[in-house]
Amino acid sequence: MKDVIVIGAGAAGMTAALYALRNGKSVLILEEETVGGQIATSPRVENFPTIKESSGQDIANGLFEQITDLGAEFELEKVLKVEKDGKVFTVTTDYGRHEAKAVIIATGVKHKHLGFAGEEELTGNGISYCAICDGAFYAGQEVALVGDGNTALQYALLLSNYCTKVYVFTLFDKFFGDASLVKALRAKENIIVKPNTMITGYLGETELEGFVYKENGEEKKHYTKALFVAIGQVPDNKRFENLADLDKDGYFASDERCLTKTEGLFVAGDCRAKKVRQLTTACCDGACAAMAASEFIDKMGQ
Amino acid sequence: MKDVIVIGAGAAGMTAALYALRNGKSVLILEEETVGGQIATSPRVENFPTIKESSGQDIANGLFEQITDLGAEFELEKVLKVEKDGKVFTVTTDYGRHEAKAVIIATGVKHKHLGFAGEEELTGNGISYCAICDGAFYAGQEVALVGDGNTALQYALLLSNYCTKVYVFTLFDKFFGDASLVKALRAKENIIVKPNTMITGYLGETELEGFVYKENGEEKKHYTKALFVAIGQVPDNKRFENLADLDKDGYFASDERCLTKTEGLFVAGDCRAKKVRQLTTACCDGACAAMAASEFIDKMGQ
Repeated sequence: MKDVIVIGAGAAGMTAALYALRNGKSVLILEEETVGGQIATSPRVENFPTIKESSGQDIANGLFEQITDLGAEFELEKVLKVEKDGKVFTVTTDYGRHEAKAVIIATGVKHKHLGFAGEEELTGNGISYCAICDGAFYAGQEVALVGDGNTALQYALLLSNYCTKVYVFTLFDKFFGDASLVKALRAKENIIVKPNTMITGYLGETELEGFVYKENGEEKKHYTKALFVAIGQVPDNKRFENLADLDKDGYFASDERCLTKTEGLFVAGDCRAKKVRQLTTACCDGACAAMAASEFIDKMGQ
Repeated sequence: MKDVIVIGAGAAGMTAALYALRNGKSVLILEEETVGGQIATSPRVENFPTIKESSGQDIANGLFEQITDLGAEFELEKVLKVEKDGKVFTVTTDYGRHEAKAVIIATGVKHKHLGFAGEEELTGNGISYCAICDGAFYAGQEVALVGDGNTALQYALLLSNYCTKVYVFTLFDKFFGDASLVKALRAKENIIVKPNTMITGYLGETELEGFVYKENGEEKKHYTKALFVAIGQVPDNKRFENLADLDKDGYFASDERCLTKTEGLFVAGDCRAKKVRQLTTACCDGACAAMAASEFIDKMGQ
């Protein structure tokens, strides 16, 4: 039996492992896809304290090396369910079962994609899902953005601070976000809203050159080097709702202490309900969840 | 007038500057002592994601370089008060006055010291104020700890996981922390409590060799290479209570969103009421406060 099982090897999960290991706990990390989570898909990261510039992949690799050096065990398995019987958690995966005294869920979130041909190759080469992360790379240039919620509004306002023009493509003729954000957006002369439009495909093979969209039934092309896609994110927490409450959007309803209704079960990172989803905030959650898990185990008196 | 004034150049304040600058905001940082805050006093940091080992000073310097490269302005001035008139904040220092649209307070916290001769030289050379940060350096060794509250109890339990013996010196014959922590501590065979003791001085000049203490009126010596001092921390927020609520211990009463009762005023890092005070959590606060400040300024429509 392990002291702590961490589900998810993104920044939150790996930081949780780092803190648990340094607290003298044994740690098994289970990851269903690849090490690093979302950050591994960012070609350039400039907003992590002390790291002036790095690829997200290098950051992920550095953290992975740091925790395996400390003795973290790692398995590429998809977690199907978590159950608690007495003081023991059983984590069932597609390969088998693992037991632990405490469990930290750090399964992250997925950005919704438009789903057109070439998307995978163009992500990081013109297509971005995070203006906070990548916006500054397009300072002094024109950019485009698709979306109509608060994230899209915030991204557009952010980008308008340093981009010459921000074209915002929305499906309807209105936004579905805070009135104050909409008002602020309308006041920006360099934000050009393109209502009643639907993007239908990308232009460019290795680098984004633009995209095709429909406007009043007519097919048009918009040329740009950057398209920010802000059409929502999806958590994948349903399989854990037996042990932890979800909010209406499917995120874990837990504050910065990372606790759940189940003693010994903690949640960390983007899978948790929170306002700012960044590398810094994921790492913070990882540290808090691991400290709480360590304290929980220490209080068990074993 | 600056967009954002950040008070305090520790990890929280500098990360706030990093995020505000990348959001296109102008930033002035005011610091009364030295760059880096508490982390700069840690000789070895191994618990920051992706940085396997570094001095706290190097981390502070790296972050400082990162933000000055982005255009942060820095002044060595002590802030005396912050006032808000209409939409403008005025920050008065011992050198003059500065104006800003938003203010982020990141003044940190100070660990209480025992105050004996040699303390400054021995800090980082045997005397530590953070077992989470430095405990692992003494794995397999005997250590000592002074304190009787929750932090002391948590530190002792942590250290007992990997140190051979943990001597805990307390002023009285009881602890002033959670019953469950006290119970867990009593159950640990390698934690030896030394009640009714008072440390009166250090042994060693460049490296800690031990300390002198009084027990039942008798002066004794305890030899050890590590003494963890966990006798409390003190925030320094009283001067801001006109604009932001403090909790009973003097910390800013604010959750992870870093908001205060004054629009446009945010708080970040150890000065805020929170459970886990680490480099990761300070950076998280900095990012959240700066995102909130940027959004606040964008909504002003300027």
